[in-house]
Amino acid sequence: MASFLITGSSRGLGLALVSRLAALPKGQVETIFATARQDNSPQLNQLVTASSGRIELVRLDVEDKKTIEEAARQVESKLAGKGLDYLINNAGTLDYNPAGLEGMDNLNQIFNLNVTGVHEVTRAFLPLLRRGQKKTVVNISTTLGSIARAQEYAQSPTPAYKITKAALNMLTVQYAQSFASEGLTFLAVSPGWLRTDLGSQRADLPVETGAEKVVDIVLKTGPHQNGKFVNIHVPGWEKAPGPNQYEGKEVEW
Amino acid sequence: MASFLITGSSRGLGLALVSRLAALPKGQVETIFATARQDNSPQLNQLVTASSGRIELVRLDVEDKKTIEEAARQVESKLAGKGLDYLINNAGTLDYNPAGLEGMDNLNQIFNLNVTGVHEVTRAFLPLLRRGQKKTVVNISTTLGSIARAQEYAQSPTPAYKITKAALNMLTVQYAQSFASEGLTFLAVSPGWLRTDLGSQRADLPVETGAEKVVDIVLKTGPHQNGKFVNIHVPGWEKAPGPNQYEGKEVEW
Repeated sequence: MASFLITGSSRGLGLALVSRLAALPKGQVETIFATARQDNSPQLNQLVTASSGRIELVRLDVEDKKTIEEAARQVESKLAGKGLDYLINNAGTLDYNPAGLEGMDNLNQIFNLNVTGVHEVTRAFLPLLRRGQKKTVVNISTTLGSIARAQEYAQSPTPAYKITKAALNMLTVQYAQSFASEGLTFLAVSPGWLRTDLGSQRADLPVETGAEKVVDIVLKTGPHQNGKFVNIHVPGWEKAPGPNQYEGKEVEW
Repeated sequence: MASFLITGSSRGLGLALVSRLAALPKGQVETIFATARQDNSPQLNQLVTASSGRIELVRLDVEDKKTIEEAARQVESKLAGKGLDYLINNAGTLDYNPAGLEGMDNLNQIFNLNVTGVHEVTRAFLPLLRRGQKKTVVNISTTLGSIARAQEYAQSPTPAYKITKAALNMLTVQYAQSFASEGLTFLAVSPGWLRTDLGSQRADLPVETGAEKVVDIVLKTGPHQNGKFVNIHVPGWEKAPGPNQYEGKEVEW
């Protein structure tokens, strides 16, 4: 009977998370607030229509504080006195800077979306999360944001993505520390390299697999994982060659 | 016979670094470019006057790309064909958010100064660094930017400082990877908790001690430390109680 809010639901992992949650029994997943910058995703609209009111489309641009505040009011009204159980901060972007650091001109913009956006959404929904049963916030991060593992990803020309996701990890830990005493859980999750517009079609896994594994983590987490950074678990991928092993363990910072 | 450029030289650690370098023999430290946003620091002006032309004051605001480019032209002209040996990215700021994360309204601004500022200065000076003998960039970071050690600093109400310094560490690693093949060295250094306007008078160490120890690291570093994050070494502080031990070792990310 839990409620979920997922940002960046119009496509990619966000859309797949909504779809996965909607496939679970209503006793487990009651309401899904699927947020998107614009109401222009046929796939999301199809999910909403098929959900018989279980998925609610909410306009929310993580770069626009006014839409965040309006979204929080809309969700509060829909929840009618109940709290929000799960917030999944999924909206984010990736840079592609094949010219390298000397050509990196988009660091502030990507930081605003990937980090400040998460901060603004999180603090706007804190009052509702405090009233929720689960009080859980999952931030979609990436192993490319692990400074300790940077050498493994030296060939990925996405410096702003790596820098901002390292910052997101520290933001997650700051929230975890600040609200532990109120019983909230904040968790950074690396969803794997997924076949989406962001991940490209060369990626390791179908987006549905990533979404399923992220939802597994979301539903099982709690204060015991507060402030952690974890990877998904995909059987058969535990000892894959290359940088990506999906063994469901904590990722080094 | 080396040349140095230090950003944020009008006060605090930057001023102390200029002072410390100017106290070393001319055979070791030939030219010091001391940059500041404004020419309004009596202490820096005094150092410049006493230096008989060895310290050159350069106007540079790390948040203003035009001043960075003008500074690079001024330094190039002064070096008259030679390269810049050492760049110390010291300019930075700290937030104080006693109201906690819910009151954190300055994340983008602090990121722009602490991270994008370092990026813009570094890429503007890369052509001169490539022509230098030492090819070394030292970024002033902090153990508060270590995500692995975040629990130790849970009581410090400076979330934006911690988040942006974690991002700076990843930026440092990205530069280290990108330019290793050209023989450049990029190093993140935690200068210790110093008695400055930023560190407060409750801090562990006099700013002169921090500056001396940072200069020790700068003069000894090289490609063997490329991409590392190190702490200063202060004899007697190796096993101090509390989060700060100054044992001159690598800091966990």
